[in-house]
Amino acid sequence: MPHGSMKGDAMSKIWANSGDSHVMEPDDVWTSRLPAHLAERAPRAVKDERHETVYVDGQTVFRTLNAFAEAARAPGARDLSARLADLDAEGVVNQVLFPSMGLWTYRITDGELWRACASAYNSWMAEEVMSASDRLVGVAMLPLLSTEDAVAELQRAADLGFRAAMLATTPPEGRDYNLDVWDDLWAAAADANLALAFHVGTGADPRMFRGPGAVVINYVETFIPGQRTVAILTAAGVLDRHPGLKVFIAEGGASWVPALADRMDEGYRQHGAFASPKLSRLPSEMIFEQVYASFQHDRSAIPAFEAMEYPNVLWGDDYPHLEGTYGHTQETLRQLFGAVDPATAERVLVSNFDRLLGTTTRVPVTA
Amino acid sequence: MPHGSMKGDAMSKIWANSGDSHVMEPDDVWTSRLPAHLAERAPRAVKDERHETVYVDGQTVFRTLNAFAEAARAPGARDLSARLADLDAEGVVNQVLFPSMGLWTYRITDGELWRACASAYNSWMAEEVMSASDRLVGVAMLPLLSTEDAVAELQRAADLGFRAAMLATTPPEGRDYNLDVWDDLWAAAADANLALAFHVGTGADPRMFRGPGAVVINYVETFIPGQRTVAILTAAGVLDRHPGLKVFIAEGGASWVPALADRMDEGYRQHGAFASPKLSRLPSEMIFEQVYASFQHDRSAIPAFEAMEYPNVLWGDDYPHLEGTYGHTQETLRQLFGAVDPATAERVLVSNFDRLLGTTTRVPVTA
Repeated sequence: MPHGSMKGDAMSKIWANSGDSHVMEPDDVWTSRLPAHLAERAPRAVKDERHETVYVDGQTVFRTLNAFAEAARAPGARDLSARLADLDAEGVVNQVLFPSMGLWTYRITDGELWRACASAYNSWMAEEVMSASDRLVGVAMLPLLSTEDAVAELQRAADLGFRAAMLATTPPEGRDYNLDVWDDLWAAAADANLALAFHVGTGADPRMFRGPGAVVINYVETFIPGQRTVAILTAAGVLDRHPGLKVFIAEGGASWVPALADRMDEGYRQHGAFASPKLSRLPSEMIFEQVYASFQHDRSAIPAFEAMEYPNVLWGDDYPHLEGTYGHTQETLRQLFGAVDPATAERVLVSNFDRLLGTTTRVPVTA
Repeated sequence: MPHGSMKGDAMSKIWANSGDSHVMEPDDVWTSRLPAHLAERAPRAVKDERHETVYVDGQTVFRTLNAFAEAARAPGARDLSARLADLDAEGVVNQVLFPSMGLWTYRITDGELWRACASAYNSWMAEEVMSASDRLVGVAMLPLLSTEDAVAELQRAADLGFRAAMLATTPPEGRDYNLDVWDDLWAAAADANLALAFHVGTGADPRMFRGPGAVVINYVETFIPGQRTVAILTAAGVLDRHPGLKVFIAEGGASWVPALADRMDEGYRQHGAFASPKLSRLPSEMIFEQVYASFQHDRSAIPAFEAMEYPNVLWGDDYPHLEGTYGHTQETLRQLFGAVDPATAERVLVSNFDRLLGTTTRVPVTA
């Protein structure tokens, strides 16, 4: 039985796969693998008394209060055996692992540096993390300034055993995802059967607000480019030309997907005479079949699956980040899934992860 | 009974209020009411052999194929008695009326011109349209470059009998809706009990894509600033400080609202220690109570109401525009509402309109 039951034993554990978790990279993940002239430009965090500042390639890409940076750091954030103990305690079987500091590489503007950072990270992830447990499913980072570079790294990642490769929700300037410059990457991903994973908040921020409410407004802003990415890949015919290609938007929730699908069907039908390319399937059909999306706490996610018939809802713990469920995972899962149809829970918590990644989950954990 | 029944008589009409319809302004709506130096800068459309081009204040703000501009223009687009006959035929009781050409006034960058255009439009709407039938519920346009101007026109509109006033989903540069420069307008709207209506596609376009899929991608882009507007008004405490204030996002669908509400609750809860202002209610509570949203065709709209418990779903015909239901209104309503709980249909098709605008709908039409 893939999930706990509330009947009889209110405390039985609900086991879940997490489609959205993060490693906290060791400080030397890049410096130990890159030549000095690149290592000094790799992502690094510097703390003063009040702030943590992240630098990449000479740019300041992020600055936050130390209190914010340090909030809710789980014991296993940097230590793999502690992480696996956390997983057992929280009831998480497998985790899709995105980077943390590495998220900022998607702001790099130098091709050589980005290539080197992505490659070093992927080697580290395969050698040091994925080798430790098959419960840890890494996502390969791709350099995005050149499609040739992205294809080469994607193929290397496939050879290293990765099942998903990561792009930015906002691509580099001038390289919108509807342009044919990307065609070789879509074909390579489809050929290698690697899912394309887009994590919210990656690439250049489209907008940043200041003033009243800005913290929450900007949190909302991060989920907009994920919607845009799905719209672009669908309308430009990428999903249509590669029906086996799977796209995953991580950490942005899942219930926006049916809304977007309806919006696109309306746009395609009502403006269809003026649309190019023509599509062989309705946008909603492609999206419901090929696009996956993960949520943490959203009450609307299960109704998106059950009432709006969007099948590819994934749950994620976002461990060990502040937006995630660490410390309250079982409480969250019980609130969300305690009373739902077991088939729904099985699909959202377990098998959609396997569908996306081509894995096979054994529950309960026996490793 | 507020809507038709499929039992016994498959052709019985489903009557609905439309929260999102448009007038097509007569060519002289501005020129006949403005002094010459302003009249020549008011919105105007110029046709050549292939294209229709819209100019406002010396800017070219829109250019489209004549075929696109002329598609699906209903007989009553410009003629009020023909419009009322269209409403009867389509099964629409009342319409909220937004402008068409006037949508482009939300790009004006000159305060005097904007003030004059909004005022002339509102006078025309009250004198020439709303006076013809209480089934035609105009939305007043507001000039947005100065809050003082906006407040003055809102108060004039209230005196003229308007029940809603229109803002742009994207405000003028430097005047984001979270800033306190707007406070007097929120207070004036709450005092006058006028709903704030935001129609998709108004204000400066945040992004425009070119190339494959652009027609549909840009259709999706138009619904993003509506999401942003709700996020901003909620996070900045505007809804919290004015619990009677109602906000309406027109023509962007309705099922994105629960997704946004969940996103905001997560952001406020998880980042709440760093958020300012503090809110007395959860974002989702304020949004579900004070924010209304209208859809035309979306299959996900009724599940957003029934399964996600978002109460303020409104339907709209978008008459006479191409994105709307003219010519297939009854077919669309039967597909969407033919099998749903009558209480759902009554709320979405009839009484939410009255809740938003403070009107009382008599169905069937007896006027």
